[in-house]
Amino acid sequence: MGEAIVSDLLTEILIPVAAVIGIAFALVQWLFVSKVKVAPERQGVPSSNNNNGLDDYLLAEEEEGGNEHTVAVKCAEIQNAISEGATSFLFTEYQYVGIFMVAFAILIFLFLGSVEGFSTREQPCTYSKDKACKPALFNAVFSTVAFLLGAVTSVVSGFLGMKIATFANARTTLEARKGVGKAFITAFRSGAVMGFLLAANGLLVLYISINLFKLYYADDWEGLFEAITGYGLGGSSMALFGRVGGGIYTKAADVGADLVGKVERNIPEDDPRNPAVIADNVGDNVGDIAGMGSDLFGSYAESSCAALVVASISSFGVNHDFTGMCYPLLISSMGIIVCLITTLFATDFFEIKAVKEIEPALKRQLIISTALMTVGIAIVSWLALPSSFTIFNFGTQKEVKNWELFFCVAIGLWAGLVIGFVTEYYTSNAYSPVQDVADSCRTGAATNVIFGLALGYKSVIIPIFAIAVSIFVSFSLAAMYGIAVAALGMLSTIATGLAIDAYGPISDNAGGIAEMAGMSHKVRERTDALDAAGNTTAAIGKGFAIGSAALVSLALFGAFVSRAAISKVDVLTPKVFIGLIVGAMLPYWFSAMTMKSVGSAALKMVEEVRRQFNTIPGLLEGTTKPDYATCVKISTDASIKEMIPPGALVMLTPLIVGTFFGVETLSGVLAGSLVSGVQIAISASNTGGAWDNAKKYIEAGVSEHAKSLGPKGSDPHKAAVIGDTIGDPLKDTSGPSLNILIKLMAVESLVFAPFFATHGGLLFKIF
Amino acid sequence: MGEAIVSDLLTEILIPVAAVIGIAFALVQWLFVSKVKVAPERQGVPSSNNNNGLDDYLLAEEEEGGNEHTVAVKCAEIQNAISEGATSFLFTEYQYVGIFMVAFAILIFLFLGSVEGFSTREQPCTYSKDKACKPALFNAVFSTVAFLLGAVTSVVSGFLGMKIATFANARTTLEARKGVGKAFITAFRSGAVMGFLLAANGLLVLYISINLFKLYYADDWEGLFEAITGYGLGGSSMALFGRVGGGIYTKAADVGADLVGKVERNIPEDDPRNPAVIADNVGDNVGDIAGMGSDLFGSYAESSCAALVVASISSFGVNHDFTGMCYPLLISSMGIIVCLITTLFATDFFEIKAVKEIEPALKRQLIISTALMTVGIAIVSWLALPSSFTIFNFGTQKEVKNWELFFCVAIGLWAGLVIGFVTEYYTSNAYSPVQDVADSCRTGAATNVIFGLALGYKSVIIPIFAIAVSIFVSFSLAAMYGIAVAALGMLSTIATGLAIDAYGPISDNAGGIAEMAGMSHKVRERTDALDAAGNTTAAIGKGFAIGSAALVSLALFGAFVSRAAISKVDVLTPKVFIGLIVGAMLPYWFSAMTMKSVGSAALKMVEEVRRQFNTIPGLLEGTTKPDYATCVKISTDASIKEMIPPGALVMLTPLIVGTFFGVETLSGVLAGSLVSGVQIAISASNTGGAWDNAKKYIEAGVSEHAKSLGPKGSDPHKAAVIGDTIGDPLKDTSGPSLNILIKLMAVESLVFAPFFATHGGLLFKIF
Repeated sequence: MGEAIVSDLLTEILIPVAAVIGIAFALVQWLFVSKVKVAPERQGVPSSNNNNGLDDYLLAEEEEGGNEHTVAVKCAEIQNAISEGATSFLFTEYQYVGIFMVAFAILIFLFLGSVEGFSTREQPCTYSKDKACKPALFNAVFSTVAFLLGAVTSVVSGFLGMKIATFANARTTLEARKGVGKAFITAFRSGAVMGFLLAANGLLVLYISINLFKLYYADDWEGLFEAITGYGLGGSSMALFGRVGGGIYTKAADVGADLVGKVERNIPEDDPRNPAVIADNVGDNVGDIAGMGSDLFGSYAESSCAALVVASISSFGVNHDFTGMCYPLLISSMGIIVCLITTLFATDFFEIKAVKEIEPALKRQLIISTALMTVGIAIVSWLALPSSFTIFNFGTQKEVKNWELFFCVAIGLWAGLVIGFVTEYYTSNAYSPVQDVADSCRTGAATNVIFGLALGYKSVIIPIFAIAVSIFVSFSLAAMYGIAVAALGMLSTIATGLAIDAYGPISDNAGGIAEMAGMSHKVRERTDALDAAGNTTAAIGKGFAIGSAALVSLALFGAFVSRAAISKVDVLTPKVFIGLIVGAMLPYWFSAMTMKSVGSAALKMVEEVRRQFNTIPGLLEGTTKPDYATCVKISTDASIKEMIPPGALVMLTPLIVGTFFGVETLSGVLAGSLVSGVQIAISASNTGGAWDNAKKYIEAGVSEHAKSLGPKGSDPHKAAVIGDTIGDPLKDTSGPSLNILIKLMAVESLVFAPFFATHGGLLFKIF
Repeated sequence: MGEAIVSDLLTEILIPVAAVIGIAFALVQWLFVSKVKVAPERQGVPSSNNNNGLDDYLLAEEEEGGNEHTVAVKCAEIQNAISEGATSFLFTEYQYVGIFMVAFAILIFLFLGSVEGFSTREQPCTYSKDKACKPALFNAVFSTVAFLLGAVTSVVSGFLGMKIATFANARTTLEARKGVGKAFITAFRSGAVMGFLLAANGLLVLYISINLFKLYYADDWEGLFEAITGYGLGGSSMALFGRVGGGIYTKAADVGADLVGKVERNIPEDDPRNPAVIADNVGDNVGDIAGMGSDLFGSYAESSCAALVVASISSFGVNHDFTGMCYPLLISSMGIIVCLITTLFATDFFEIKAVKEIEPALKRQLIISTALMTVGIAIVSWLALPSSFTIFNFGTQKEVKNWELFFCVAIGLWAGLVIGFVTEYYTSNAYSPVQDVADSCRTGAATNVIFGLALGYKSVIIPIFAIAVSIFVSFSLAAMYGIAVAALGMLSTIATGLAIDAYGPISDNAGGIAEMAGMSHKVRERTDALDAAGNTTAAIGKGFAIGSAALVSLALFGAFVSRAAISKVDVLTPKVFIGLIVGAMLPYWFSAMTMKSVGSAALKMVEEVRRQFNTIPGLLEGTTKPDYATCVKISTDASIKEMIPPGALVMLTPLIVGTFFGVETLSGVLAGSLVSGVQIAISASNTGGAWDNAKKYIEAGVSEHAKSLGPKGSDPHKAAVIGDTIGDPLKDTSGPSLNILIKLMAVESLVFAPFFATHGGLLFKIF
């Protein structure tokens, strides 16, 4: 078998060091961003008396290039309004979710504790029957603790992201006065703060938890890493509510603001006269930033847990090879260092001078991080793995070489890049698919929608083949552990991915602030250019998230099957098949709920915005201020109320199926929801992205073809706006929530597997 | 084991007698329909000089209640134009498809013949190794013959349906002058002609083929029924091209006609000034009639073949119990008799006097046929089955009682009814889901589309549970044979189902003819009422088709797995899993192709219609005739050209996967496409149906709520028209084609199973 080159002690040091470096780097970036001064004279008391101040300034008509000082003050006020709105929403959301989390934590304890009837005696281990493992009751306690830790870390990740974004948006606006390069660096650095904080924080908490849990578990690594999976479940549960709640919030506000403002009243986007404009900008931060942060943290936590739990019952765990065991964490540590170097390419090594350099700069980030990370993986695989080791594979053993595991991680990483570029091809208006969609607007909204849906369906093909190849290769090389580390590979550059992802909504907000502060057309053009590039990279980010979710949930599914002691999941048994077909239905049920929620909330928003325009005199003329607070309240109430049913569907399905129908049916449900959900998630994201960029293509009018469809307000443009509006809930609510659905059901099944294996399938036991 | 009460000889007599009764009944109905005289004075030469005549009359302005004789002549002319257009398209289509069929027949022969290297020596049987079976070469020959027979029967079914529909449409219009009851009976009788001809014809050809094949196969029933599955493949392949080609034809014309006529030029539907109006009416007959006829014939043929092939390797086949073996055919025979009685309830026992009685009358058909058929199944199960028998189940044997098999068939039948009623709930504007969608038109097309998509997703839930329960119960009782007969149960009332289905497009056409012939408003109102009821029943018919397709393809899948000698399809092997995820992607790929095709063809149609309105002086005023022929040609060319890629995708995928990746991966592909395709098919059909009826709800304006959204031409109505147009390709092209996709891939895999089992999986063999 051989020994790893890196000693266990060195591993114990390297991981926290990498995490601390990541956090330090994030703080340095934050420092750079904070050097941009907002509202210089009011420093120290920026949020005092905020609402009235905002209202006063927001609507004061001002000439272009007006008083620098006044503009900065205005920006500060708007920023504060957005920040306070977002903070207040998140606090409300976390209150509700907190209650749910506590209830679910109790459920975890009761279910897992009951496996051995709350006995405090040691039990024979599940996989090594001759050894004694810790009692199920304590596994229940530690799983519950891990669950809560994961949930809290997820909340902190989302919240920090939101704080950074609302700290950076006005600063980006102000920097945009100096040039597009300055604004880009501010937005990108802020994204990097979020990316590094999340990646490093996730790694550190996981690492500390493992070490603390080890104090109790000692040699029982099987129990230790089984309990640790609670961390993934906690992270993902929070992510679900964050994504769904935030998604409904942001899209209700966005759709509502657009339908009345842009379509009916013909006022520009982010116009301060629109009563829903603050809610819209708040939404970007709670949905696209906080929700996405929680989501990707969840993916990261789950893929680490999936790899750890499989490793714990393989030779690493059995032989207590700590360095080998920590291979997933070492990959993540290496990822932080690689992303740190990659970030310098965007912020220090090159300088953006023109608008057209933005998108290449962002794409370069992906390529550089992938290329460097490939080397990084090779180094980690060479140093941290013994030259050969044994992997547990559904009752059989598989001999794996260290270079084989390198290929598993690398194929995941590169499949991510392929998915990213395919997504770009189908959603960027530089290529023919989006241009075709734009062209179909010539004959109206109906053909636009038909072409857009067809594009989304088509965009599924290559990503699915990329995922299929990754699965086949990594499974062939290293069984389920291979798939888990492939997922980890796809997520290893998460810090860079998140930086790029967060950059988008920050630029979007910066544009909104420029518009609301009445800044010059030139500033708005610059922030628009930043935003357009962010649109495509956001789609790429979603592609990554979905691809990794597919791999993660398959790995979790594999771990679940091992833990539940089923040797095969045969589609041709009716128990499995009905699970498969019902599982494939769940993403539709879930999407129906979330889309209907956005639709209903948007209807309420539309009515309120119309009411304000109709009843508040002088609003359209800009002489009276709108009532922003009511719109914020509509979005808040709707998202809190509407996130519960879809959340409950996802959280309760594995419990109900496992308890009443047993592990075979649950396996079917997991497989079905995975293979069906991936398709809807990809097609929904890309359809929405394509519609958005088709609209932008017509608006920008850079080619002859685009000019023939425009300008703003033309019939084709109106048709494009309808498509864009339909795409909003698809790409920002139901689509991205679906990857949480498939991951969460898998990790939940894994956590509850001991219970299901013992007490599950009540219905079949009775009849 | 016991003996069946019905002797083999009686079985040999009963089946053809039932088929002949069905055909005779169809002819009697035809006779009734033909008593309505069209163009009395020109009798005998109705089609002479058709095109010029049409053009002359079509545009002659005429006062309401004008000369009876002139109206009848006009109707005859329009009918002829539609009939000739449809006939000419079908001939063109059949030419192309014919070439494909011959090529594919050669492929079948070569693939299956090569299994034993074209040897003419007898081989040991697959399941009873100690017995000698016919050489693979002759199985290849007979499979090829069965394939061609199935293809020809399918063509005949579709063609006859089209002929009847184009014979009945003008007659329905003329009868509508006398009252809604008369018109209803004419349309319904015509539908019944098609329903009974198809059901009886399909049964008869299958029965004769079995008896003829038996002359060669004698005791080798394993080979006999394996060869017979070619019949299902032939039927389904034709159905695929019929559905896709016809679907593209009809929707290109429909969307094109609506976008320019209704939206841009504000002229009514079916207005003779619209150049695409003839193409639109032709489309109804080639898509909704001929395509659907081929589709349901295919389902029927496949479910019979699936049941027969499973039975042939079970105790019926092994003991040469002919009556038991023919149980599926006896169920179909009973179905014809039950449907015959059911039809009398619509045509003779009751009389429709008011518009509001139409929909209940059609729904009563479903309930009566289901109730009677339940008794019919019980009788057949009691008379034709031994009290107990053995079913082959993936290498094991299962003892089944005759009453257990009764439950299998009955649960399929009733699940169909449940699916039908759920579909009605989600697509009829009498209930809140469609009314909510209509209400969302208040805020524009975007919210309409969001709500419509959400409705479609939601409508999947109960049908999937119904299918899951049917699968679980029927599999538990009688393994894969149970599922096959459950599918047969769902399709046992196919004659009534088809009658109701065909009734819709006939009424639609009748309305078109009334409009084009310039008949009175009252006549148009009556045909509209017939059409509206037909819309909901069409959605119900699609629900049945999809539900039965799910069961059929699962049964075929089971038969394939048996034949390919795989004992399990374990999702946790990478070969199967990559098949599963790629299979789940195929319906998206296929939908992308078909929707894009409709979109592109519609764009061409829009341009042509616009061109004609812009360049032909006097067209909008009704003084000049449009150039109908060019529009017909656009639809024809587009559908012929565009049906090839999706057709090839479906036909080639099983061949490529089976040959290169082997039977395990192919099993995964089949399971994946089944569980994913069912969902898209149901949601696409119901979304489209709901949009259509939401539009009709606003137009009809029967409630206060509906009035507040209307009238025609209001903003909400315009939004509803956009939704309706988007729904067209979803509900009439991609949705209904998907059930063929899942069935066809399964039956094709079954036919080629001997080849794949011997020579498949090249890629894995090489590497």
